[in-house]
Amino acid sequence: MTPARPATGTGTNHEAVRRHNLGTLLRHVHLGGEVSRAHLTTRMQLNRSTIGGLVTELEGLGLARQTQPSPSRGAGRPSAGVTTAHDGPFVIAVDLGVDRVVVARVALGGAVEQRARAAIPSSAREAWQVGSTVADLVREVVSGAPPAAPLVGMGVSVPGLVRRSDGLVRLAPNLEWHDVSFGSIVLAALGLDVPVTTANDADLGALAEQRRGAGLGIDDLVYISGNVGVGAGVILGGHPLRGAAGYVGEVGHLRLGTEGRACHCGNVGCWETEVGGLAIAEAVGCPAQQVASLDGFLDTYTGPLEGLREIGEQLGGGLASLVNVFNPERLVLGGYFRPLFALVGDEVRRALAARALPAPMESVSLTTPGLGADSVLVGAAEVALEPLLVDPVATMAQAVRDVPARLAG
Amino acid sequence: MTPARPATGTGTNHEAVRRHNLGTLLRHVHLGGEVSRAHLTTRMQLNRSTIGGLVTELEGLGLARQTQPSPSRGAGRPSAGVTTAHDGPFVIAVDLGVDRVVVARVALGGAVEQRARAAIPSSAREAWQVGSTVADLVREVVSGAPPAAPLVGMGVSVPGLVRRSDGLVRLAPNLEWHDVSFGSIVLAALGLDVPVTTANDADLGALAEQRRGAGLGIDDLVYISGNVGVGAGVILGGHPLRGAAGYVGEVGHLRLGTEGRACHCGNVGCWETEVGGLAIAEAVGCPAQQVASLDGFLDTYTGPLEGLREIGEQLGGGLASLVNVFNPERLVLGGYFRPLFALVGDEVRRALAARALPAPMESVSLTTPGLGADSVLVGAAEVALEPLLVDPVATMAQAVRDVPARLAG
Ligand SMILES: [Zn+2]
Ligand SMILES: [Zn+2]
Repeated sequence: MTPARPATGTGTNHEAVRRHNLGTLLRHVHLGGEVSRAHLTTRMQLNRSTIGGLVTELEGLGLARQTQPSPSRGAGRPSAGVTTAHDGPFVIAVDLGVDRVVVARVALGGAVEQRARAAIPSSAREAWQVGSTVADLVREVVSGAPPAAPLVGMGVSVPGLVRRSDGLVRLAPNLEWHDVSFGSIVLAALGLDVPVTTANDADLGALAEQRRGAGLGIDDLVYISGNVGVGAGVILGGHPLRGAAGYVGEVGHLRLGTEGRACHCGNVGCWETEVGGLAIAEAVGCPAQQVASLDGFLDTYTGPLEGLREIGEQLGGGLASLVNVFNPERLVLGGYFRPLFALVGDEVRRALAARALPAPMESVSLTTPGLGADSVLVGAAEVALEPLLVDPVATMAQAVRDVPARLAG
Repeated sequence: MTPARPATGTGTNHEAVRRHNLGTLLRHVHLGGEVSRAHLTTRMQLNRSTIGGLVTELEGLGLARQTQPSPSRGAGRPSAGVTTAHDGPFVIAVDLGVDRVVVARVALGGAVEQRARAAIPSSAREAWQVGSTVADLVREVVSGAPPAAPLVGMGVSVPGLVRRSDGLVRLAPNLEWHDVSFGSIVLAALGLDVPVTTANDADLGALAEQRRGAGLGIDDLVYISGNVGVGAGVILGGHPLRGAAGYVGEVGHLRLGTEGRACHCGNVGCWETEVGGLAIAEAVGCPAQQVASLDGFLDTYTGPLEGLREIGEQLGGGLASLVNVFNPERLVLGGYFRPLFALVGDEVRRALAARALPAPMESVSLTTPGLGADSVLVGAAEVALEPLLVDPVATMAQAVRDVPARLAG
């Protein structure tokens, strides 16, 4: 995390530095839960009185509150703590899959306060139809919000290629969307204007796992999202990879062979046709229309494993390419790969070890998400909260109040 | 490039900031050739007198010199310029291939002052044998150096996996090296102690092309090194990718199919077995022992193109994976791919376009290196010069003088 910037020079600059430091302190509180002032003083390299002033300002903004020193925690003079405010700001997180969508209200600090879920039948996958479904779920999850709590934004995860500059969904192949501004569609359906950040599901999974899950403290991480399609979110050297336009990590179309099922991309032999949700569903005899709940199906699956073993091998073989190409310290298997790994983890590991180069294999560990099935949802909340952690003053000034009442109509 | 840091606080900190600014100014001069003081003032956000002081200090260190204003360049008051010193510091750059090695003396500013080349016969590929060859070439290229010019370090490119922490060559498969500390071997053969930076060839090619070649001003770039093996150097968001231990970009082992030649990695169907130097040599009837000069062979090749067309298609097909995975703005085809692309560029482009996803294809351009066959050599010089651009004072204090005389014995 960035250390605090020293204040320098002119008044304008001083104000910018102060806002930056406010955001940094809030980020520590957001990610750390209750943190002591002593910890903040050390981490931010600022003196006690400056930290005190920042905490007071965050209290005034309704973002933080002070807690009493807990005398039981070790020796030495106990230090007062700081945590997030009661009834503080919240965001809406949307995890859109091909066949289901989950929406949550998430508070500053990361707690999922309320969630709702709906299936997306294949007969209602037009963007406006899905937007309307999402709007209904948003109304549901804000219904229980404290009346005065401010809404600072919405984060939307999409299983597809999202242009970073404006969040346009260039392609969500399994929804058959091309160039859809889904964020605007949801806002229109809600009749609400808040900042929306739209991003790729695997990218958000990677972010969430690094901040709060299996990638905590890990700088080089690949999160593989195994759903109907397959994608990767990649963080290297602590930086999420974006590429020229935001499309990094379309690993589902790595070629495993020259034969196989036809892929929507126009080729055959793509990795996702071998290991994606449809292949898994077929292997376990899950009817295509129930793929929406395939992870639950797999969690309780006790049938024959032959077909899954083959998929496990194909999964490991493709992961080997990711190890060779990205040299990650951790591979996190998200989506349907989470329950799949519980069933055929040995096959996955064996195929990975057989195919990857020994040197990058030495340092990699393979795991399922620390956040379970919630990685992508949590990632969507994190990106929606991000402006608050960069400039709390400006973001709170633009936050929307009385959201339950506004949306109840 | 980093703007200058404002001076703050204590004396020690002030000195660190001053050294940082010295390095930053020198980096502008190193990369920009002759730069005007006015340009430096703007770019570094420092005032004229501070810039003047830094220039004077660099002059005193023997790193820079002032040039007269050139009145012909546009209107307005002409600004005095700064450029690198005569007889300034130099580095040794080593570009080690599987079957040949090139060594150069490169001055601050990037000019290749002297170069030498030797074949590496397959009978003399032991690390100590190659180290001895390199030492001979080093003696040759420093022979013409100005007696007083200080040597600041050596940069060594290796066609293999190099551990970033200490430069250990974990694997150079086509040389059959495992865990070789090649830098130390060369120093031992020379009887000289200078800092050595060892790195992967494709990583150095990417660095050089971004600083001085086809990637100038490009933040998202993949350099593909097509030699006996195939690798990629990747720069995304302006940051060179490293991964957990430095092995990012082993794309030669991406699987193109389930059949094909056996690869040293123990698998079949690896991309480099289809498009690497041996496959190209076979397609054009170049005897295996002449693969060392395959690029020259291809530059003048006028024979049938059938075999090369097929390789061009396999190259394009693999590049599609790199476009899907990295979403680069530019793909630079280095090594043997440079002359290959001149012969069957259409096949490469067609296969790439057929296989890559349309969205990342929109923003990518395919090109050969701006530095021709020298990308990797220039990259090796750049990493050897890097400490000088970070802290000129400390680096010059440790530089080795009288190198021609020392190595002549
Ligand atoms: Zn595909
Ligand atoms: Zn291989």
